[in-house]
Amino acid sequence: MKQSLLFTKTSKTVSAEETSLNAQFLIKGGFVDKLSAGVYTMLPLGFRVYKKIEQIIREEINSIGGQEVFMPSLCPNENWKKTGRYEILADDILFSAESKHVKSSVLNLSHEEVVSPLLKKFVNSYQDLPQYVYHIQNKFRGEARPKSGILRGREFMMKDLYSFHATEEDLNNYYERVKISYKNIFTKAGIGDQTYLTYASGGTFSKYSHEFQTLTGAGEDYIYICDKCRVAINREILEDQKNKCPECGNNKLREEKAVEVGNIFKLSTKFSDPFDLFYIDKDNNKKAVIMGCYGIGLQRLMGTIVEVSHDIQGIIWPESVAPYRVHLISLKQDKESDKIYNNLLDAGIEVLYDDRDISFGAKFADADLIGCPYRIIVSTKTLEQDSVEFKKRTEKSSELVKKDNILKIFK
Amino acid sequence: MKQSLLFTKTSKTVSAEETSLNAQFLIKGGFVDKLSAGVYTMLPLGFRVYKKIEQIIREEINSIGGQEVFMPSLCPNENWKKTGRYEILADDILFSAESKHVKSSVLNLSHEEVVSPLLKKFVNSYQDLPQYVYHIQNKFRGEARPKSGILRGREFMMKDLYSFHATEEDLNNYYERVKISYKNIFTKAGIGDQTYLTYASGGTFSKYSHEFQTLTGAGEDYIYICDKCRVAINREILEDQKNKCPECGNNKLREEKAVEVGNIFKLSTKFSDPFDLFYIDKDNNKKAVIMGCYGIGLQRLMGTIVEVSHDIQGIIWPESVAPYRVHLISLKQDKESDKIYNNLLDAGIEVLYDDRDISFGAKFADADLIGCPYRIIVSTKTLEQDSVEFKKRTEKSSELVKKDNILKIFK
Repeated sequence: MKQSLLFTKTSKTVSAEETSLNAQFLIKGGFVDKLSAGVYTMLPLGFRVYKKIEQIIREEINSIGGQEVFMPSLCPNENWKKTGRYEILADDILFSAESKHVKSSVLNLSHEEVVSPLLKKFVNSYQDLPQYVYHIQNKFRGEARPKSGILRGREFMMKDLYSFHATEEDLNNYYERVKISYKNIFTKAGIGDQTYLTYASGGTFSKYSHEFQTLTGAGEDYIYICDKCRVAINREILEDQKNKCPECGNNKLREEKAVEVGNIFKLSTKFSDPFDLFYIDKDNNKKAVIMGCYGIGLQRLMGTIVEVSHDIQGIIWPESVAPYRVHLISLKQDKESDKIYNNLLDAGIEVLYDDRDISFGAKFADADLIGCPYRIIVSTKTLEQDSVEFKKRTEKSSELVKKDNILKIFK
Repeated sequence: MKQSLLFTKTSKTVSAEETSLNAQFLIKGGFVDKLSAGVYTMLPLGFRVYKKIEQIIREEINSIGGQEVFMPSLCPNENWKKTGRYEILADDILFSAESKHVKSSVLNLSHEEVVSPLLKKFVNSYQDLPQYVYHIQNKFRGEARPKSGILRGREFMMKDLYSFHATEEDLNNYYERVKISYKNIFTKAGIGDQTYLTYASGGTFSKYSHEFQTLTGAGEDYIYICDKCRVAINREILEDQKNKCPECGNNKLREEKAVEVGNIFKLSTKFSDPFDLFYIDKDNNKKAVIMGCYGIGLQRLMGTIVEVSHDIQGIIWPESVAPYRVHLISLKQDKESDKIYNNLLDAGIEVLYDDRDISFGAKFADADLIGCPYRIIVSTKTLEQDSVEFKKRTEKSSELVKKDNILKIFK
């Protein structure tokens, strides 16, 4: 992409009400735009990052048998009343939606009330189980005072996976597979080192559920890390467990601030009961389907990556989710730079080509802000040596690389 | 995909309230599920078709310079009041959304009220124009009585592209490029032959806008076709034009029922004026940005394909949008069929493998209903001849193909 064609521009300033670092960098860099409190547009650069995160998640969930669907946002109140969640949430974060001809609807903030009656249409026998159904879809949550940038939006995309089982044992086995899959997702997205499997409350159905918490000062949660087991527990569990690690009993736990980037939860029959979602077992008995649910907010993950990976100049995108792999910079568009650009494109390498007629200094500042992993600088000086300057976003120093050897770097 | 693993099943019946053919086939085949009037879930098979349509559109719009973003559904009323559309639509098809902490919001049914103030943040000079911005995003329209299946939903995905120009001439040129791009989209989606560029009302800004209308008895519109020019005009224009083709004056026009699958519209300054979206021209004059908008509803396109391409047994998907290219059928899962399945997968061919333990007759009926372009049948009889039976969905007769030659068919 030629940067001169991009409709967005970077900006040096950002509204004083943007107190979160992720929003500051993402808005300055032209990744997102704020329409209203907690409601953001993904701009072209941000959309590219978003799509890469989406693809990482999709591949992992497909690999554990997830079948992708797309469920709607509009849902009859009635479904939410059946599960009792309407009463709890309608006067809080749940959105109602209505128009002249359509009354009594809510905007789903998760999809148990849609997926449970859906599965009822297809599940009859134990032979129809297990099933794993997910979608990547926009959610609406009327947060009181969204102030954490894209970490906590009023409208955001979420991957929500629901699993359906004949037995608790089968749910437990799948739950362990999702744990591994989630670890893979956060590792691939570049925040594996900072992310901890965290014991959280399991509600009435199992002793624990699990959150995935990523360490960052921007976090709204406190977690307590056992460095022996490389797990954490949340504050609620800390008190229950009398300050001990639930895995090894270690009581030297380290307090850290963290952001919840994913959660996995055993629902048991909480949602199958109200919708009479059952199956007939081998002995012809009617039994309630056992469910699990597993969520990851995509903008939250994107914002967390920014909180974790940046320096004072801007974002440092992990290669797997960077909007472009290479930022190619020349003082202005010239034949040699065009040629390098086209060679990179032909080799299948994603390049943002800064061909704008502005100073090198301004271009470098933008490149640091936007945060692509590799920078290639073409100047009269480098061309005299048949070379370009090559620099990683994570490093201060650059090196000269012969023009003919550029592609070798990316092999 | 092994069909035994699919959580959906085909059904022989469908609720009597589903009067549209597209909904009947799509629900029976397990492509979509109806949650409430006009609100559908895309099930795994339907989601695959949907994603292929999305990709056809994305590639075409990218090829005419479209920059992809993702704008939100929630929008402050205020934006809609500025353009006057709130007053017109708030008591009709526009949805309002609210929660305890978020009042006075609507759910966008198109995005002029979001994209115009967005562009204002980035456009200053004539050098910042033209720009082409699009997204593929869910829309909400509170239709009074949705009864056309997925042709007219209350919630659906739409590709909406907005173009921004310094001059009417530049808009006109781009408008012609979009026309070609839209033709390509409908041709690639397999309904090119049935789809007509149709003259429609241009509002106050240009004499005509254009719809793309696809001939089908399921259509809610009447169009009047000039077979000489291969264009059509809608009823409103017919009266203005005194029953003559606006291109050649031909007055032998043929009336047909049709579905509008896309529209392109010159907005002029209708939305730039209220948001003060302007640019400074070469002579330092402030001028309003000229806009165009271009929409395609994805579920509507999907439903139209079904209306156009089916027989009494079921859907006949064009290859480009079929959920799977090949439906592999064996009486039950056996080693030979598994091998053929794996060979097809290894060759990158998308296969739905009916490995269920049910009769051949039931499998054939399902295959006709689901409508993949190619069917491969493996039976004891064919295997005795080292062969499989190969049949196109569009043809009645099948042929024997040697097992070793299967892949050659798909080259």
